[in-house]
Amino acid sequence: MKAEIHGGATILEPRPNLTPPRSWRRWLIGNPLPTADAPHQTIGKAVGLAVFASDALSSTAYATQEIMVILAAAGTGAFSYVFPISLAIVALMLIVTFSYEQTVHAYPSGGGAYIVARDNLGELPALAAGAALLTDYVLTVAVSVSSGVSQVTSAFPSLYSQRVWIAVALVGLIMLINLRGVKESGITFAIPTYFFVVSMFLTVGIGLLRYFTGSLGMVPNPPVLDLDTLAVVTPFLILHAFSSGTSALTGIEAISNGITAFKEPRSRNAGITLLWMSGILATLFLGISFLSGKIGAIPSERETIISQLARTVFDGTGPLYLAVIAGTSIILILAANTAFADFPRLSAILASDRFLPRQFTFRGSRLVYSRGIVALAGLASGLIILFHASVTRLIPLYAIGVFLSFTLSQAGMAHRWWKSGHVRPGGEKVEAGSVVHYDPKWAMKMIINGFGALCTLVVMFVFAATKFKDGAYIIIVLIPLVVLTFYTIHRHYRRLADKLSLEHFSSPRRITRHRVIVAIAGVHRGSLEALNYARSLSDDVTAIHVSIDPAESQKVREKWSSYGDGIRLVILDSPYRLLVEPIMEYLDNIIAKRQPTEMITVVVPQFVTNHWWENLLHNQSALLLRFALLFKPGVVIVEVPYQI
Amino acid sequence: MKAEIHGGATILEPRPNLTPPRSWRRWLIGNPLPTADAPHQTIGKAVGLAVFASDALSSTAYATQEIMVILAAAGTGAFSYVFPISLAIVALMLIVTFSYEQTVHAYPSGGGAYIVARDNLGELPALAAGAALLTDYVLTVAVSVSSGVSQVTSAFPSLYSQRVWIAVALVGLIMLINLRGVKESGITFAIPTYFFVVSMFLTVGIGLLRYFTGSLGMVPNPPVLDLDTLAVVTPFLILHAFSSGTSALTGIEAISNGITAFKEPRSRNAGITLLWMSGILATLFLGISFLSGKIGAIPSERETIISQLARTVFDGTGPLYLAVIAGTSIILILAANTAFADFPRLSAILASDRFLPRQFTFRGSRLVYSRGIVALAGLASGLIILFHASVTRLIPLYAIGVFLSFTLSQAGMAHRWWKSGHVRPGGEKVEAGSVVHYDPKWAMKMIINGFGALCTLVVMFVFAATKFKDGAYIIIVLIPLVVLTFYTIHRHYRRLADKLSLEHFSSPRRITRHRVIVAIAGVHRGSLEALNYARSLSDDVTAIHVSIDPAESQKVREKWSSYGDGIRLVILDSPYRLLVEPIMEYLDNIIAKRQPTEMITVVVPQFVTNHWWENLLHNQSALLLRFALLFKPGVVIVEVPYQI
Repeated sequence: MKAEIHGGATILEPRPNLTPPRSWRRWLIGNPLPTADAPHQTIGKAVGLAVFASDALSSTAYATQEIMVILAAAGTGAFSYVFPISLAIVALMLIVTFSYEQTVHAYPSGGGAYIVARDNLGELPALAAGAALLTDYVLTVAVSVSSGVSQVTSAFPSLYSQRVWIAVALVGLIMLINLRGVKESGITFAIPTYFFVVSMFLTVGIGLLRYFTGSLGMVPNPPVLDLDTLAVVTPFLILHAFSSGTSALTGIEAISNGITAFKEPRSRNAGITLLWMSGILATLFLGISFLSGKIGAIPSERETIISQLARTVFDGTGPLYLAVIAGTSIILILAANTAFADFPRLSAILASDRFLPRQFTFRGSRLVYSRGIVALAGLASGLIILFHASVTRLIPLYAIGVFLSFTLSQAGMAHRWWKSGHVRPGGEKVEAGSVVHYDPKWAMKMIINGFGALCTLVVMFVFAATKFKDGAYIIIVLIPLVVLTFYTIHRHYRRLADKLSLEHFSSPRRITRHRVIVAIAGVHRGSLEALNYARSLSDDVTAIHVSIDPAESQKVREKWSSYGDGIRLVILDSPYRLLVEPIMEYLDNIIAKRQPTEMITVVVPQFVTNHWWENLLHNQSALLLRFALLFKPGVVIVEVPYQI
Repeated sequence: MKAEIHGGATILEPRPNLTPPRSWRRWLIGNPLPTADAPHQTIGKAVGLAVFASDALSSTAYATQEIMVILAAAGTGAFSYVFPISLAIVALMLIVTFSYEQTVHAYPSGGGAYIVARDNLGELPALAAGAALLTDYVLTVAVSVSSGVSQVTSAFPSLYSQRVWIAVALVGLIMLINLRGVKESGITFAIPTYFFVVSMFLTVGIGLLRYFTGSLGMVPNPPVLDLDTLAVVTPFLILHAFSSGTSALTGIEAISNGITAFKEPRSRNAGITLLWMSGILATLFLGISFLSGKIGAIPSERETIISQLARTVFDGTGPLYLAVIAGTSIILILAANTAFADFPRLSAILASDRFLPRQFTFRGSRLVYSRGIVALAGLASGLIILFHASVTRLIPLYAIGVFLSFTLSQAGMAHRWWKSGHVRPGGEKVEAGSVVHYDPKWAMKMIINGFGALCTLVVMFVFAATKFKDGAYIIIVLIPLVVLTFYTIHRHYRRLADKLSLEHFSSPRRITRHRVIVAIAGVHRGSLEALNYARSLSDDVTAIHVSIDPAESQKVREKWSSYGDGIRLVILDSPYRLLVEPIMEYLDNIIAKRQPTEMITVVVPQFVTNHWWENLLHNQSALLLRFALLFKPGVVIVEVPYQI
């Protein structure tokens, strides 16, 4: 141990090998990392695309299918609407992209919806955005993993009945990987992401080529569409299908959260990456939607649209087909992994703002926010089990939170531009801890962000209305409840801080007198040790014994006369065989009579057994007594352990 | 509060209304009873028969059926063996009865197998008997309740699919009734027991009358016997069926446990009651077995033999049929209730002999051994769920424990008579705490008990061999494990007693110096209160702070210079963000250097929140630290609560 004197305090450095002892945990999670090891490295555009795009790009795996699921109610004829609806979604995507491109430049240190809303709109909108994002991350994991598993079961139908447990096991695996800590960079992300992009471009490219040369056939043995009654195509149905398709936009905000990870000039690099990502996403999504209609694909829980498309384009389930399935499954898993980076980070920010339990700010042995990771895995697994790993049943819960956070983030940006138009040119203004500079193009920028906010707001309402009874109502109820929980937690911490505050604090009154009470169950070495300690604290010592069994109490009295050394023994009669209550009643009497500078100390002898199971052989009265005494103001608890 | 000085100690009587506060519990269980209320009343032979016979008599509800289930393997022709097998079982029953009749006279204060074996055979046989009896009681509850439910589902077949939950709910109900406390006497037992006896005698009597007058037909629509292959009748099959039938003997020992409940001359009264009980049991069992063969009853999980017999004798499912079903179901429930009296009593005896956790000796708010009652209900419910409330599947586990306890008890008695033949006439001999008088008829009595022991020993081996793979192996493995557990528990308590013993005890060395360490997470009112307390204990106070977050530690250091009042602050660096380990390492250093009469006290400030959920917002480091510190010899823990 090395000691160092520093600013009045002694600082002790521990032995270098002082690490947590639990070895099974270390085997699972890895050796603990010291705080000083926190890594910081930056990445270029190509790797940045791989790291941040998986969530957005992976939505191409299910967005088209979810549009078709809704239209299927009106029969296969309605599938002609898939492509026009997809075009509308891409238009929305471009609006949101340009809007976020501005955020990337305005918030070079990372502009998630929570931070943007907090800086520019205030606490309530920020918390609403936070609640929306947290729910959204949980759903990203549930939807992505469920969709990934459904790709696999499309290729291997015999696994279909096990899909829920496969999905839960995958969530567990991703959790473990994240508890070990992943470096958000490099080859781990780049290879699968680009593998997916290449294989999908190949599928869509060859598909289009074969379509325009007339050699693309229909899906062989498509899944059966089981339909009891045939609905007609109404505007509501179209809007409903559009809402489902907006799941294609999820994940588009990821880059704006992670700008700090980019090489300088980071805003510029991040902005370009965002544009590239949107371009790829739009192209693939439109291509898949277009081809799905042409080949007569049928949406089904049993076989995904991607699977049907790939086996039609590649004439069967050969290596190219398997490559597409593998690529799609893996990118979906990576998308879930993105949420495992974002959820813990956001919950740590919320916790350090005192809206979530502070445990979320602690870094685990591998320097990651372990509690957030475990919480996310637990919540997502719960959802997967509850919704039987069905993407179609999860989707109605999904996009509403995404669009709420889009709206709040863009509205916040719009408000920011308005403010920056009202700072004198060249100057700056600090508001709510955030610095706003004058921007000559503020009006244009405000219009772009404002228009984005308006569009996403409208989409959110369309989504909520069309999908209300499919499950959107759950989120509409949940988000306000989460916000309420944030406030409740905040109030607790604020009250605590007030109570602990040293403002107007005068030193506590010097304790001049100790009154010590020793609670004994029997007269033995353990209780005499406790008595000895008690006598070293004060001359005013009383032993108390609760009489439950008269024979036992008689023995205590007899032994006390030999070993009690003249100390007063009070026997508390307990006709109802209660232990804690008579002690509390006795203490109440003493507390009522105590002097202002007198301190009451209760000494409790405590056996310590060698093996945990031996505790089952004792009735833990010391522990019970401790919990009861904690709630008595003005009483200090002393535990004298007696190791056996 | 009333105070009284008594033999050097002050005895305080609490306010009369000092009772447990939890009202839902009180509503369920009843108002608590003071210890002084423990009832003691004695009963006559007629009521005694009702109280103690329910277990034994209730076995007529399933014994015949279980013989038939085994014979069914060789087809309905094999049912001609039912009556001869029943005769053999009744012969065994009479041997056991006469053997126990002698126990009743030799042990007027209650001679359960555990006590008889402990007095006369030694510790190991006594523990084997104890283990056998405890398993037996659990099985009595499982078998009786399952059989009771199967009577009900025979009358109301639509309940068949819910039988497991009905059985578990019944066990829960019996548990609640016993937690409230039942008076082991009077009308509660007498009415249903005599109702059962009368209705069964009526069934058997009318059945025999109709049979001998030739008016008794066959069972209308008997259950179907589904049989894949037809076995032949072998001696093994006969012995197997005999073993199943021995379940008729279970409960016959009940009176020997409860002799103290009888009016004086209690041994004589108990003995006569035992003979009466055996007579009724033998008559009913033989009658049911005889008639079952004559009416062509078929054993089935769906309809019991009792149900088939009753609807044949009474020509349909009219009021008399329902009376028999009701009577049988209720006596089976009462039989389970008997186990709820015996299991807690025996586990309390074992616990006071230090072979079970001492918690089993505590009387609950209603003066009953609540822990034993809850343990029995839990174990029996587990068995019912595991074996789907099937009597046939439970029976192979059942009688082996019963016969082991019979054998040990009677062997113990035989040994006792041998000893009483070797005391000089008129004299007495004390061995293992038990007084043995000379008895002139010792040889005859020894032969009766010895023969009983031999018979039940042989039956036990037959049972174990024929039913080994049906489930008897579970008990053969379990009983030694339970005995081993008894010994392990005993060793723990003995070691504990040694460690606590005041023999060779010299007063602990006077503590001359206190070294006090205050563990602080931050500088606030809570930690300053703790510091104030620490300073009142000693002049040698050191504050320690574990540095996990450097920014936080910096704040602690700064605030300490204003509020620390010159007390030394040690910052423990924790690169792996561990809290407890650095403190332990620091204490190890201090302990290594301490003087013999120096005491190390660790003061921990502890927040106390108003609501339980608020604890989720704190990371319970005080509690963690407490558990770790308990295991450090020579360190005392002081918790200074700070109520918020």
